[in-house]
Amino acid sequence: MDAFEQSLLLHRKTRGKIEVRSRMRLETQEDLSLAYTPGVARPCEEIAKDPAAGWDLTWRGRTVAVVSDGSAVLGLGDIGPTASLPVMEGKAVLFHEFAGVDAVPVVIDAHEPDEIVAIVKAIAPTFGGVNLEDISAPRCFEIEERLQDIGIPVLHDDQHGTAIVLLAAMTNAARVVGRPIDELDIVVNGAGAAGRAIALLLSGTDESPHQGSLRVCDSKGILHPGRAGNDASKEQIAKLTNPEGQSGDLRDALRGADVFIGVSRGNLLTGEDIESMADDPIVLAMANPTPEIMPDVAEAAGAAIVGTGRSDFPNQVNNVLAFPGLFRGALEARATRFTPSMKRAAIDAIVHCVEEPTAHRILPSPFDRQVAVRVAEAVAEAAREAGVCHQGS
Amino acid sequence: MDAFEQSLLLHRKTRGKIEVRSRMRLETQEDLSLAYTPGVARPCEEIAKDPAAGWDLTWRGRTVAVVSDGSAVLGLGDIGPTASLPVMEGKAVLFHEFAGVDAVPVVIDAHEPDEIVAIVKAIAPTFGGVNLEDISAPRCFEIEERLQDIGIPVLHDDQHGTAIVLLAAMTNAARVVGRPIDELDIVVNGAGAAGRAIALLLSGTDESPHQGSLRVCDSKGILHPGRAGNDASKEQIAKLTNPEGQSGDLRDALRGADVFIGVSRGNLLTGEDIESMADDPIVLAMANPTPEIMPDVAEAAGAAIVGTGRSDFPNQVNNVLAFPGLFRGALEARATRFTPSMKRAAIDAIVHCVEEPTAHRILPSPFDRQVAVRVAEAVAEAAREAGVCHQGS
Repeated sequence: MDAFEQSLLLHRKTRGKIEVRSRMRLETQEDLSLAYTPGVARPCEEIAKDPAAGWDLTWRGRTVAVVSDGSAVLGLGDIGPTASLPVMEGKAVLFHEFAGVDAVPVVIDAHEPDEIVAIVKAIAPTFGGVNLEDISAPRCFEIEERLQDIGIPVLHDDQHGTAIVLLAAMTNAARVVGRPIDELDIVVNGAGAAGRAIALLLSGTDESPHQGSLRVCDSKGILHPGRAGNDASKEQIAKLTNPEGQSGDLRDALRGADVFIGVSRGNLLTGEDIESMADDPIVLAMANPTPEIMPDVAEAAGAAIVGTGRSDFPNQVNNVLAFPGLFRGALEARATRFTPSMKRAAIDAIVHCVEEPTAHRILPSPFDRQVAVRVAEAVAEAAREAGVCHQGS
Repeated sequence: MDAFEQSLLLHRKTRGKIEVRSRMRLETQEDLSLAYTPGVARPCEEIAKDPAAGWDLTWRGRTVAVVSDGSAVLGLGDIGPTASLPVMEGKAVLFHEFAGVDAVPVVIDAHEPDEIVAIVKAIAPTFGGVNLEDISAPRCFEIEERLQDIGIPVLHDDQHGTAIVLLAAMTNAARVVGRPIDELDIVVNGAGAAGRAIALLLSGTDESPHQGSLRVCDSKGILHPGRAGNDASKEQIAKLTNPEGQSGDLRDALRGADVFIGVSRGNLLTGEDIESMADDPIVLAMANPTPEIMPDVAEAAGAAIVGTGRSDFPNQVNNVLAFPGLFRGALEARATRFTPSMKRAAIDAIVHCVEEPTAHRILPSPFDRQVAVRVAEAVAEAAREAGVCHQGS
């Protein structure tokens, strides 16, 4: 039986993957009077006086909502909220297993950004953070952007989780090939949630902008300013990465490039495409389940380092390396938001989980339990340094 | 140390009373491929084809949201969503402990009925039922009413949970004093969430209307049609219970009555008020923490049966006798709503949990674990009879 049918059986047997448990004994009338009335009035009053007390007295300080409208689920597309629930439960399992974070799926039957923003804002007092998941582009950009000031950290994992792990992979790959990452000529194929976040991170900061070329392609080729059909997001990326206005298709972009980053679809590239790149290129082909090019084909064509999203090849780029520790760190610091410095701290922490990177080991294993711990520490410290924490943390 | 300070310490120690746990092992790459990608795509597809499959394949079939805006919390009033969270967590503990139902607090920062209705509708695909909690009257009536057709059962526990347990108490009290319940002259003091629901249940059905008198009072006296300041809810109750238009204060209403039901505030009545009632009256004084009249005072003045909301006196009217089993039964039947017949089934089940009612035992103990089991069975059966179940149940 394959993983799909086994998974179906397992879901049927457990009736979902998560459950809510009590942390308190409830055997006597006295227990009841402490957990519920009349005793519970006291923690309520305490929080009414000082809302920050909620971080200590309720589950809020350790709980994240995993919010989705089910509009961009895995490779399945817009299957709606009800059908997306198994994915959100899976995410909750990962949060709990890797970082001890309590995560609650909230799938919502609403699609307009205005509605989704209003709902997430309204339920925010229940949680210490919000992981947006599987919301289609370009709505996901606006939604995440408009939720940055609600007082708890909100992060669209399909954008930033993926981008953070990818940047960690790139950093160690650059160490292995002995070239400075900011001088590499890079092609990102895919301008959706992940592609955009990767491009924004790669483009660097005002103080240290990326020096090499950076081209982002979608199914219509290289993004350039003013290209017909550009939405606001694509126009922004085009202006940022390609102010000179290079046009052409993916193959044009690839020619002579040092790095290919694929967040697009399977079986796009051939060995010849890899051969057209610079010597010893880095290929991170993350389409799931079939990568843009299979590792053996890329390596045969000269790729120095190949990573994919898959567990059955070396160098799995899996965002489970990022999101559990990111939220754990944010919760520990009682952060009000994720800052760029917190994301950079997460990248650094993942990078340094690999002591001696090699061509077949640019990232730690997804099952290395130390990763979330180290990411959390680094993120919490960055939050404190950035001064974006609720009082009392 | 009193229960209040003990409760505060306990909340601080446990950092909230509930947690989310995984029901699946997650130790190997294979486990990950079943709980999450790629295997999880299969249950998603199954639900996309047939949404009813979600009842079996996700936590939905055993999970209830406990939704509040924190506008009418215990005796504390409008303390807001953040400060109400400990109560909702407590409710979740009770759901789990008494009925094995997974309950998730969702406290929301929204107060307009339109907003609350929209939010609950939107998050409904995540859950198998919604327990509305501590939402102030009269908004709670409109909100609950407008959520009856969303495809999962929605119940405002402060109304119906309380009313169901109260009716069970009344039924057994009537058995003890040997008088038919529908011939009793009854006074309900309090026209908020609980008072209204009690009045509606007591007034009977079109086929068997209440025969005795039924008067509902608020702080301004007996509700009667056209009374100055009646909102829509109060006008409706007035027309239903008092078409003859009797006016006067609580004392006028009490004179000669068989039953006093208090859902109002402490220390309202004296022994003389009880003496003004008919012989051997029934007094259910449920104000918390101080009843409308203390049991010893009421008994000394001739009350045949006295119940309160308190655990330290006999006959505790506690809605933990109703809501866990109500939702458990609705979930087991995959009910789309709560019908009046399901509520009546719950009342009957609670009534029959006491084999030989006596003046000091008209209700089962809140810790009698059989109550939720029997209520759930009765409610599920009533749901199936009413034909309000999702297919496949």
